[in-house]
Amino acid sequence: MATLGMIEYADAGPEVRAVYDDIMATRKTDWINNFWKALAHDPATLRRTWESVKQIMAPGALDPLTKELIYVAVSATNLCGYCIASHTSGARKAGMTPEMFAELMAVVGMANETNRLASGYQVEIDERFRT
Amino acid sequence: MATLGMIEYADAGPEVRAVYDDIMATRKTDWINNFWKALAHDPATLRRTWESVKQIMAPGALDPLTKELIYVAVSATNLCGYCIASHTSGARKAGMTPEMFAELMAVVGMANETNRLASGYQVEIDERFRT
Amino acid sequence: MATLGMIEYADAGPEVRAVYDDIMATRKTDWINNFWKALAHDPATLRRTWESVKQIMAPGALDPLTKELIYVAVSATNLCGYCIASHTSGARKAGMTPEMFAELMAVVGMANETNRLASGYQVEIDERFRT
Amino acid sequence: MATLGMIEYADAGPEVRAVYDDIMATRKTDWINNFWKALAHDPATLRRTWESVKQIMAPGALDPLTKELIYVAVSATNLCGYCIASHTSGARKAGMTPEMFAELMAVVGMANETNRLASGYQVEIDERFRT
Amino acid sequence: MATLGMIEYADAGPEVRAVYDDIMATRKTDWINNFWKALAHDPATLRRTWESVKQIMAPGALDPLTKELIYVAVSATNLCGYCIASHTSGARKAGMTPEMFAELMAVVGMANETNRLASGYQVEIDERFRT
Amino acid sequence: MATLGMIEYADAGPEVRAVYDDIMATRKTDWINNFWKALAHDPATLRRTWESVKQIMAPGALDPLTKELIYVAVSATNLCGYCIASHTSGARKAGMTPEMFAELMAVVGMANETNRLASGYQVEIDERFRT
Repeated sequence: MATLGMIEYADAGPEVRAVYDDIMATRKTDWINNFWKALAHDPATLRRTWESVKQIMAPGALDPLTKELIYVAVSATNLCGYCIASHTSGARKAGMTPEMFAELMAVVGMANETNRLASGYQVEIDERFRT
Repeated sequence: MATLGMIEYADAGPEVRAVYDDIMATRKTDWINNFWKALAHDPATLRRTWESVKQIMAPGALDPLTKELIYVAVSATNLCGYCIASHTSGARKAGMTPEMFAELMAVVGMANETNRLASGYQVEIDERFRT
Repeated sequence: MATLGMIEYADAGPEVRAVYDDIMATRKTDWINNFWKALAHDPATLRRTWESVKQIMAPGALDPLTKELIYVAVSATNLCGYCIASHTSGARKAGMTPEMFAELMAVVGMANETNRLASGYQVEIDERFRT
Repeated sequence: MATLGMIEYADAGPEVRAVYDDIMATRKTDWINNFWKALAHDPATLRRTWESVKQIMAPGALDPLTKELIYVAVSATNLCGYCIASHTSGARKAGMTPEMFAELMAVVGMANETNRLASGYQVEIDERFRT
Repeated sequence: MATLGMIEYADAGPEVRAVYDDIMATRKTDWINNFWKALAHDPATLRRTWESVKQIMAPGALDPLTKELIYVAVSATNLCGYCIASHTSGARKAGMTPEMFAELMAVVGMANETNRLASGYQVEIDERFRT
Repeated sequence: MATLGMIEYADAGPEVRAVYDDIMATRKTDWINNFWKALAHDPATLRRTWESVKQIMAPGALDPLTKELIYVAVSATNLCGYCIASHTSGARKAGMTPEMFAELMAVVGMANETNRLASGYQVEIDERFRT
């Protein structure tokens, strides 16, 4: 964060370090990206957000790659530069091929287009979709 | 569409009917949902949109279920009521279980939250994500 | 507004009535739509908003129809049901034909699609566009 | 603005200078930020926007700090980099502490999450909220 | 939720009931609104979301009323009908007067306007806002 | 694209070159902007997107300048930096004067403001707008 700066491991208190340690252990890496170093200014949000992300992105009915694809889809829809960069990277680590990325972008673009066509044409929800 | 009305098959010209026929054949159904009946007021957009959707949503590097999940993720992010209803229905037909839907929503919610934390904290993109 | 109700002319104070009168005179109509009747709960915002709309939507370098088309484009992008309905109506009164509406929707849909392709692909601004 | 450039006080005409003078007098500063220097390309919008901001952000039923917090909340939701930077600065000047900023971000993140859960789950408005 | 239905207390399992009980105890009410009854289809998200909301909306550096105002600001920016209705209700219970609501809306409207002016004019962040 | 790089003409295969050639011929220029060079990583999306843009932005019931103005309006609403830069440039080439740009921005800003006032005040659609 430009005005706050990032909190590095060496400068972090024990509460923040505990989260950093868990991030690195869970992700099997020795590196913390800027998002968490910025949130570290608020240890409560850092912990809550990490715990939620850890729980939500774990394998379940959907596999980790599918979850990362969904994360990129939301981030591209919101035009969040940071999130697109970090989760595109995450999706690649989870197995996203260039062909998958290309199809992901095509679906995201199309959905954003038809969302506006549906609203602009004031389309009413079909009864079949309500039951 | 409230002010334009929907164009039913019986009232459609040959250009619109050809698209309707292709939609029903491709989807193996005898039913056209309101989105297409509204677009039918503009046959050029109807055809172009359907051809794009047909091409993009076909099986490829991503399977049809994953594509429907992404479509719902975008639609929920944009708060498009029509699109959420229609593509949640489509995702179910493609095999989405209640457990998958629950996880999809959890990821969409979390991504929308962290998108704003990243912007609000003015987090800069890590060099590692740029290369 | 569901919980506040609309303020009708008969129930309005002189400050609100003055704005209502000006809206009807400017638009050459005897009717006030719900947007203004809701804002009337806050006469300062009612007046300020109306004065701004009146000034901005007046003929200038852009004609009133073009301005209404832009208003619909923004409203469809934001999925604002009320604003789409009211400004589509306004655009028709200003001369929008069904063909114009169809092309407007096509451009709005396409722009929303390419906005996300540009963000998802992390496209950098060309130097030529900066100078 | 990259392609238009900023209009500095020395280069401004009397209409723009009058607004700049009022901004500096109202804010008790000798400095004009880029937003206004860009709007100065359109003196009518410069004046209208400044008059509206001045009126709306003045102390009233809500104090100036609360108004700046709301401004940051909207800007973070829209991912407006410029507005986040300028209004976070403004909020600090109005008394926002790091603890307040942290809680502001937490609420903004949570609201953006639950907005999408509400839409994705197609939650209907409770009757109690309508009356 | 139209297609899933709401899960009432009488039909809920012990995990969901425990959350419902905590919501009613925390809010000193005997009533659960639809948002939670829809999330109850996924007990994990129900619990996580409630725990987060409970923690974030508790009094802290910002008082509960300010937090509700921020919640409404985000919801209005996203055009989330459900969230606007529920949190406007919540803000009123927390002490929001009609005058406060009016000023809240004015700030939200203005911020959404200037966010787009800043982006459309391609305004660069002032150096002073970066340090 | 930062992580993918741009595909220059010299490095492109025949499918991509054919699209590049058509872009340059249609636009009467010898230059391809980054958007297309990024999409070239997916020739199918490159072709489909270009064909759609070419068809939609051609003169019709709306002239090319009006279409570019609408494109800028959507892009500014979405805060898409790339798209604002490229389509503001395109609008200028199509004849947009500084006065037109100023009015365009004023309408975009106002529409984004009133969209949120309409949602925040929960304004119901007038019957007259439905028929």
